[in-house]
Amino acid sequence: MNYRIEKDTLGEVQVPINAYWGAQTERSRTNFKIGPVGSMPYEIIEGFAYLKKAAAYANCDLGVLATAKRDAIAQVCDELLAGQLSDQFPLVIWQTGSGTQTNMNVNEVIANRAQVLAGFAIGEGEPVLKANDDVNQSQSSNDTFPTAMHIASYKVLVEKTIPGITKLRDTLHEKALEFQAIIKIGRTHLMDATPLTLGQEFSGYVSQLDHGLAALNYTLHHLSELALGGTAVGTGLNTPKGYDVKVAAYIAEFTGLPFITAPNKFEALAAHEALVASHGALKQLAVALYKIANDIRMLASGPRSGIGELLLPENEPGSSIMPGKVNPTQCEALTMVCAQVFGNDVTLTFAGSQGHYELNVFKPVLVANFLQSANLLADACVSFTDNCAVGIAPNTKRIKELVDNSLMLVTALNTKIGYYKAAEIAQTAHRNGTTLKEEAVRLGYVSEEDFDLWVQAGDMV
Amino acid sequence: MNYRIEKDTLGEVQVPINAYWGAQTERSRTNFKIGPVGSMPYEIIEGFAYLKKAAAYANCDLGVLATAKRDAIAQVCDELLAGQLSDQFPLVIWQTGSGTQTNMNVNEVIANRAQVLAGFAIGEGEPVLKANDDVNQSQSSNDTFPTAMHIASYKVLVEKTIPGITKLRDTLHEKALEFQAIIKIGRTHLMDATPLTLGQEFSGYVSQLDHGLAALNYTLHHLSELALGGTAVGTGLNTPKGYDVKVAAYIAEFTGLPFITAPNKFEALAAHEALVASHGALKQLAVALYKIANDIRMLASGPRSGIGELLLPENEPGSSIMPGKVNPTQCEALTMVCAQVFGNDVTLTFAGSQGHYELNVFKPVLVANFLQSANLLADACVSFTDNCAVGIAPNTKRIKELVDNSLMLVTALNTKIGYYKAAEIAQTAHRNGTTLKEEAVRLGYVSEEDFDLWVQAGDMV
Amino acid sequence: MNYRIEKDTLGEVQVPINAYWGAQTERSRTNFKIGPVGSMPYEIIEGFAYLKKAAAYANCDLGVLATAKRDAIAQVCDELLAGQLSDQFPLVIWQTGSGTQTNMNVNEVIANRAQVLAGFAIGEGEPVLKANDDVNQSQSSNDTFPTAMHIASYKVLVEKTIPGITKLRDTLHEKALEFQAIIKIGRTHLMDATPLTLGQEFSGYVSQLDHGLAALNYTLHHLSELALGGTAVGTGLNTPKGYDVKVAAYIAEFTGLPFITAPNKFEALAAHEALVASHGALKQLAVALYKIANDIRMLASGPRSGIGELLLPENEPGSSIMPGKVNPTQCEALTMVCAQVFGNDVTLTFAGSQGHYELNVFKPVLVANFLQSANLLADACVSFTDNCAVGIAPNTKRIKELVDNSLMLVTALNTKIGYYKAAEIAQTAHRNGTTLKEEAVRLGYVSEEDFDLWVQAGDMV
Amino acid sequence: MNYRIEKDTLGEVQVPINAYWGAQTERSRTNFKIGPVGSMPYEIIEGFAYLKKAAAYANCDLGVLATAKRDAIAQVCDELLAGQLSDQFPLVIWQTGSGTQTNMNVNEVIANRAQVLAGFAIGEGEPVLKANDDVNQSQSSNDTFPTAMHIASYKVLVEKTIPGITKLRDTLHEKALEFQAIIKIGRTHLMDATPLTLGQEFSGYVSQLDHGLAALNYTLHHLSELALGGTAVGTGLNTPKGYDVKVAAYIAEFTGLPFITAPNKFEALAAHEALVASHGALKQLAVALYKIANDIRMLASGPRSGIGELLLPENEPGSSIMPGKVNPTQCEALTMVCAQVFGNDVTLTFAGSQGHYELNVFKPVLVANFLQSANLLADACVSFTDNCAVGIAPNTKRIKELVDNSLMLVTALNTKIGYYKAAEIAQTAHRNGTTLKEEAVRLGYVSEEDFDLWVQAGDMV
Repeated sequence: MNYRIEKDTLGEVQVPINAYWGAQTERSRTNFKIGPVGSMPYEIIEGFAYLKKAAAYANCDLGVLATAKRDAIAQVCDELLAGQLSDQFPLVIWQTGSGTQTNMNVNEVIANRAQVLAGFAIGEGEPVLKANDDVNQSQSSNDTFPTAMHIASYKVLVEKTIPGITKLRDTLHEKALEFQAIIKIGRTHLMDATPLTLGQEFSGYVSQLDHGLAALNYTLHHLSELALGGTAVGTGLNTPKGYDVKVAAYIAEFTGLPFITAPNKFEALAAHEALVASHGALKQLAVALYKIANDIRMLASGPRSGIGELLLPENEPGSSIMPGKVNPTQCEALTMVCAQVFGNDVTLTFAGSQGHYELNVFKPVLVANFLQSANLLADACVSFTDNCAVGIAPNTKRIKELVDNSLMLVTALNTKIGYYKAAEIAQTAHRNGTTLKEEAVRLGYVSEEDFDLWVQAGDMV
Repeated sequence: MNYRIEKDTLGEVQVPINAYWGAQTERSRTNFKIGPVGSMPYEIIEGFAYLKKAAAYANCDLGVLATAKRDAIAQVCDELLAGQLSDQFPLVIWQTGSGTQTNMNVNEVIANRAQVLAGFAIGEGEPVLKANDDVNQSQSSNDTFPTAMHIASYKVLVEKTIPGITKLRDTLHEKALEFQAIIKIGRTHLMDATPLTLGQEFSGYVSQLDHGLAALNYTLHHLSELALGGTAVGTGLNTPKGYDVKVAAYIAEFTGLPFITAPNKFEALAAHEALVASHGALKQLAVALYKIANDIRMLASGPRSGIGELLLPENEPGSSIMPGKVNPTQCEALTMVCAQVFGNDVTLTFAGSQGHYELNVFKPVLVANFLQSANLLADACVSFTDNCAVGIAPNTKRIKELVDNSLMLVTALNTKIGYYKAAEIAQTAHRNGTTLKEEAVRLGYVSEEDFDLWVQAGDMV
Repeated sequence: MNYRIEKDTLGEVQVPINAYWGAQTERSRTNFKIGPVGSMPYEIIEGFAYLKKAAAYANCDLGVLATAKRDAIAQVCDELLAGQLSDQFPLVIWQTGSGTQTNMNVNEVIANRAQVLAGFAIGEGEPVLKANDDVNQSQSSNDTFPTAMHIASYKVLVEKTIPGITKLRDTLHEKALEFQAIIKIGRTHLMDATPLTLGQEFSGYVSQLDHGLAALNYTLHHLSELALGGTAVGTGLNTPKGYDVKVAAYIAEFTGLPFITAPNKFEALAAHEALVASHGALKQLAVALYKIANDIRMLASGPRSGIGELLLPENEPGSSIMPGKVNPTQCEALTMVCAQVFGNDVTLTFAGSQGHYELNVFKPVLVANFLQSANLLADACVSFTDNCAVGIAPNTKRIKELVDNSLMLVTALNTKIGYYKAAEIAQTAHRNGTTLKEEAVRLGYVSEEDFDLWVQAGDMV
Repeated sequence: MNYRIEKDTLGEVQVPINAYWGAQTERSRTNFKIGPVGSMPYEIIEGFAYLKKAAAYANCDLGVLATAKRDAIAQVCDELLAGQLSDQFPLVIWQTGSGTQTNMNVNEVIANRAQVLAGFAIGEGEPVLKANDDVNQSQSSNDTFPTAMHIASYKVLVEKTIPGITKLRDTLHEKALEFQAIIKIGRTHLMDATPLTLGQEFSGYVSQLDHGLAALNYTLHHLSELALGGTAVGTGLNTPKGYDVKVAAYIAEFTGLPFITAPNKFEALAAHEALVASHGALKQLAVALYKIANDIRMLASGPRSGIGELLLPENEPGSSIMPGKVNPTQCEALTMVCAQVFGNDVTLTFAGSQGHYELNVFKPVLVANFLQSANLLADACVSFTDNCAVGIAPNTKRIKELVDNSLMLVTALNTKIGYYKAAEIAQTAHRNGTTLKEEAVRLGYVSEEDFDLWVQAGDMV
């Protein structure tokens, strides 16, 4: 491969001749061969594109950056947001914990790309933009990287995760309404219990998701606080007056999202509970989704030797050896995603707790896990909705059989003959393999007429 | 030991002759010898006392329980709330996952104690109260136990956890104000960085706790929703009309806390994300507290071979072998508590996800872990505040030495001579063991006057 | 309360007049009011009793402790091992992270108790033993506490945990043999699959526990390495030559367990992967036990609307509202214990990773979580065995019904007519609610005779 | 895009015209749009290539597969092992939990590729190989996928992870030898303690890694057990006699690794503690690596306001704003990897516990997390070794300063003048900012000569 020579404060570096990136990116690329190339999520690069453009505008407004430079920066940022230079970000998650090297990757790409857009080759002529002094002006990695983290996280939540989960929530809500008259056996401890309607059962799922979505929404506010303007340690050294508020306003304008400057920049660099908390809400939703998906596959188990109350869409042949087998595969994908989210939450907890003094240097692993969870939950909920939830149908014949046959309808007699006599009826029927009515009458506790009047599944829901 | 014979629906049981508990408690005591005796937290018994009394009042108001029975129940509940019968609850966390046996323990103790208060011996005469039909009227374990969980959790949060953490927060805030003029070296990546004030550093801690407390407060609303009235599976079978709202109102009245009936009882029995979410906020606070306590012990490390910027109260001899050693023991206790909370969060996540159909049967382990975290965080924050935080003092001599000696003040020159020349100055001083000023002047980049004018730690914070 | 005055290197302290403990214990008791009093596990005190006695013997053998002092120390240690002074250890887990205060608690109790045994009052006369110079001779908290951790952990594993889990393993193995001829439907993805025997199913559980027990046994070796002799930082400062080997030999003799001195004392103080690894094996066993207990409750679900293949002992009335309900309560207790172990593992992982330099100061939380898991798993396995596993019986009628009715027997036809035709038969039977044989013959793929010959559940296991 | 029509047992599917995959792969590709395309790790495809070839050989030997078919299968498997068709595996982790769809992806690619190698177009002419009947002969997804999991996991451990960690271990061991005479201050509780040598400190790290590597090696045996031969539920239905042993022998031959057939196939399908346990050892190593990397960055902190005892290689400019800053970036990458491994362990624990009956359907998420941890730890250890550990140098001047200045050398006086007087000396020197010697002599406890004789750091290590 052909190389060009670039320099940074530590000396010369060989960089692939056509790469827009420069010396510092190249050092990181060489020094951190850990995991797949380019694993730093592209959402982070987009977050940087927003903030570099906003910083250029704020710097220009405040008189520390020329308009031409502002426009040169903004032009490349717009290209980045259009995804045009996505192959110029080869760095990995497992680099410096401040994300400095990705910040410099962005700075270098913007500077070199501007040079090319100005009609020069990379490295040719006077630099249109200097990576550190212009593109990174009034910034530090320590405030830009967490700003990119918040932009990326906020955006994925409002654009993907919340809509995706809401889609499933709405579908389950429709099912709850559709199923509201279907009386079925309840189960507690996995054992037969008193009846409820299938709609009531599904309404519980909806309530779980409603609470989870509300919790997730609550966390958006902390995520809307941006570190930008804090620079190296939170003091805002080397920024013009008013810069932090202005730059957050530009980011809000460019993204269309209500970002504000963080009231306390020291926290915003040294701690990331905004992400920890928001992922906590994702984890809460995963807890809910696990229960829902697991219930649905258990209710659909069979077709002949399981519970069999629900019928799921048959999407794929389920076995390479058992002909005709169909499995609850969407439930499986969703529950596997939940397992991932549970683990990611521990990674965020651990990494979030390990800040030292003025900086937490687990930023890349924090945001990578956050984005993975947010994206996977979104995708999995959409997939589950489209390929499973919308097509869920009750097996009404089976449902009726099971509820009619149940012993727990005896509970309706508690208020008539007391708990102890009711128990005797149920236990006798269980032992003899008979019906409640047979034993109730035979034991002399209830007349046939009263039994029919009092023990009606339809009255018990 | 002497025994009396009690009966339940499965037959006869020998019960210690003076025990207020009955057959079902005794079965559980015998069948679940797992861990320390009586490990079910007493806060749960108190929660039951509130709800049993409230249920009696609601049942009476709605015409299904006689006033005398109501008063008999209420009288024993008041004794329980006064802690008078605390030795009558021998059951463990590791029993049935619905907590049914603890519900019956409470029912049996109330019934038998009422018998005694009425002047009879246990088991003598007509029962004043029947454990199932009266004390448990309009209730199921499936709605009472989660109600007790919410009452216990809500109470400990508002009465202990939030005040305890707030106490620490307020003390740190006072320190932040007290230290606002003390200029010190900043540290990022554990390496020397640009300066800030000690007050700014502490203000970051305060901001962390403010965000965490806000997040915790947000979770109180979901916890205020009570399952009571859902009975066995959420349908409210065997409850009089209007009971759920009324019983929640009584609980609110008796506890003085804003409890309401859960809008969706199916969720309230089958899922416990209210606890999962609230513990998530406790975990967020533990993340913050870990960072704070760890920073403080690192800043106080030494006395001669560490950082040494802070002086902590000397509370105990620190070593059984090294004479004169004093250690940051309060930091250690608090960080150990955080480690416990991180693990408990995983237990809650796991257990919360494992509900099946109409019931989650991990209730005791969920609430036991929740209460442990809430209590330990409260106690540890109070202990840390009283025995450490209030006495934190700056080692001003050391702080000044370190900031004056730092190379990162060079950052102030970025906007004057550019990043590259500034880097050269710092690197040369580092290599030569000299000061920034010496090298800045020697390299000819800055005059002595300009250096003194431009590079002032006090201007950089 | 009456007090006496004690002194330590920080000054005077009021100690309850009759307490055997002294100044340093009292400071800790006052300074760490976190969680229940006396929460430091007594197994740790026992570990200390072994090691203090062993240290006294080794010191005496090596000529640095008088025989009379050795015997005075040993006498009190024997009392401690007999549990006679268990109320003299009021300290909590949440103290200094080195456990220094518990080490001093033991030192002080031994010294003061020896004084009393010598016929003096506490504090009266010349001290028979000095807590630091005699009882703690050739020791530091930094090597004694981890030694006590290893003694306590090793002992509970070999005396409780391994026997308890083995008991369950053996019972399941007996069941596997007992059930080896019972042919039942298999289930994959919770859906009907090809048959196996109930004994085969249980043999899988046995294999899981065998692997887990082997893994746990493997970890004993690292636990057998004792830190004692490393003193303050691992160098063995202030110990006589040969002391570390000798003291480990005495501990081995007194406990009857194969303890040795740790080859590397620096690791033994600063890191606790011996516990992390051993708890990892406990977690592996909890993973196995969770699957086993969960399978058993699902297989026993019903009695009428579930799977119903197994019958479990009916130990307690299962519901305070649903008469006659019986639940898989032992499964619930065991699975809750597993949930606790999963969380404890995260606490150990976190705490284990947070050592700094020459010491890990999360010792108490590490060992407390380890001991809780080891004890709970032991107790829960014994409880599950005695109250559930031994009484598990097959519901042979139900098992036969389900296997006879299954569509997945069609798999036997793969090798006769190919996967695609076999699938067509199964799908048609599923659609029409018919039997495989009816459709196989009707589609013309197999004759009735061949079907009977080829499709036999008994040949498929 | 152009499509061809393929059929499976559920009907027709449009497949991209040039894709080697078929109907079932295409269904999965359409139904599971969750996360990045093709996320199923390629190591799993390689595992399948080994096992498909081995199965063909075993089937042929046992007379159920023609030699020509065997060779056709083997030829494509060899191409897969050479990485030639890596773009033919578009499926994701988040599919069916049995991995059936990836098994079919492999079956379909092998069958269609064989058709092309035989000179036909895909779908043209009589099929050379049938995906289900030939390529999948004597197999089920339920035994092939776990076999691929074990092959992939075992291989990465012995080929990457163990060598990578061993490389770091060996480098640290060399450093321990190199540094064995460098006397430095010890630190416990982050506070100054008695001295040790830098070599001793590093020897502790080596001991940690030795124990961790031994633990990891121990887990290889369980991983060497292969499920293949169990088919659908573990019974081995539809396999020729002797097949399981033979196929494992072929896999051992082809991989050069000591694989054997699992003694219990029911466990091998339904449970994955082999992976849980092995990842537990990876987690143990991550605990060790975290401590090591964190110690190293703390010891290297500064350059002027930290500990400063170690000098690390200066690999990259550390700040985009602070000129001349260099950070411990390799420590940061490695500690972030550890944080990931801690979370992955929880995912494996959760997923491992969630098997139902005859199958665990969390296979893809289990193996994906396992492989990520194993690869990241390997890469990060190599990166850390090459870019940091080999270049670690002691800052001998600083080390000497700190040890000479320490107060904890007073511990050497314990055996001469007792703990209490020694403490008084240290406390007085601390209070007065003087040296131990000054105060020892001034207090009259030790003569100057004795002090010089007794208090020598070099004698204390």
